[in-house]
Amino acid sequence: MATLPNAREVLEQIRKVRQIRRYRPDPVPEDVVTELLEVARWTGSSRNTQPWHFIVVDDREILRQISLLRAPINWVSDAPLGIAIVLDGASEISEAYDEGRVTERLLIAAKLLGLGGGVAWYGDAGQQAEAKRILGIPAERTARSLVTIGYPRSTRDPRPVLARGGRKPLAELVSFNRYGERWH
Amino acid sequence: MATLPNAREVLEQIRKVRQIRRYRPDPVPEDVVTELLEVARWTGSSRNTQPWHFIVVDDREILRQISLLRAPINWVSDAPLGIAIVLDGASEISEAYDEGRVTERLLIAAKLLGLGGGVAWYGDAGQQAEAKRILGIPAERTARSLVTIGYPRSTRDPRPVLARGGRKPLAELVSFNRYGERWH
Repeated sequence: MATLPNAREVLEQIRKVRQIRRYRPDPVPEDVVTELLEVARWTGSSRNTQPWHFIVVDDREILRQISLLRAPINWVSDAPLGIAIVLDGASEISEAYDEGRVTERLLIAAKLLGLGGGVAWYGDAGQQAEAKRILGIPAERTARSLVTIGYPRSTRDPRPVLARGGRKPLAELVSFNRYGERWH
Repeated sequence: MATLPNAREVLEQIRKVRQIRRYRPDPVPEDVVTELLEVARWTGSSRNTQPWHFIVVDDREILRQISLLRAPINWVSDAPLGIAIVLDGASEISEAYDEGRVTERLLIAAKLLGLGGGVAWYGDAGQQAEAKRILGIPAERTARSLVTIGYPRSTRDPRPVLARGGRKPLAELVSFNRYGERWH
């Protein structure tokens, strides 16, 4: 069951996955898009419901309209490609969880293929409704986010208000057997 | 930005990640646990809030008590290790999404290291409260799931009621630019 001789190196790459929000204009090759969708397609989901649908978006005008929904996602207009995630709308919590799983796969797969991905949340209920209109998504479906994909131009974060980078140390994040009991 | 020479092979391994629910009794080595937690720690989250805490559980009795919460997670008692995910409890949807992201990383990392992982959801609100009591988690936190980790003994699914395997074809899952418009 041991898999790849360079597993630790692969995990190092996965640890280094960061959101990429600025791209070179080069298009994402067709075979790369297919590879990303294959990795997404095989993601596990609650009782294997596969509650997702993917809209591959390369239309500049559609990406521009999405980017105008709110300032923190203005960088979407810069991306050569977006993959909008549409959910069945049957279960809020488990579909949000499954959306997170499939998104993480897209970000990891993009990184391993030499590209980068970024996640744009449309915003509140009104902005989600507007995104559905732009993308032709039926009102009863859930649509919260679009994953942009492209070749990284910069890792600089173009958003007007930035989140702090870095991560908390394991000592702060981990307990042993019961919450609050020291691990190591 | 291209990363590993065997990226496609790595993606094939990621596509093959399945939940493992039956384990050999061998313990999970300490350095493997640390590696899994490092991959988890670097997961992205909403505004980098890192809304998670991880409880590493190797206590047989605790795992047994969790496994008794409901029949579909009876296999948890068989696992040499569990990582319980605790969330801040500040935002339902975005924390469920972030929980999905970090869980996907644990499952992928386990597979790449030659192990396997399974996800056990505690169940309804009452069962979640009981899980919090077992694990000593404060009531105001959110706790929905525990990821089991171990060396696979079998890929057979021991649950009393099985979900259907396989995945929908891309043709059914993907639109182009607008929902319902054919891709390819």
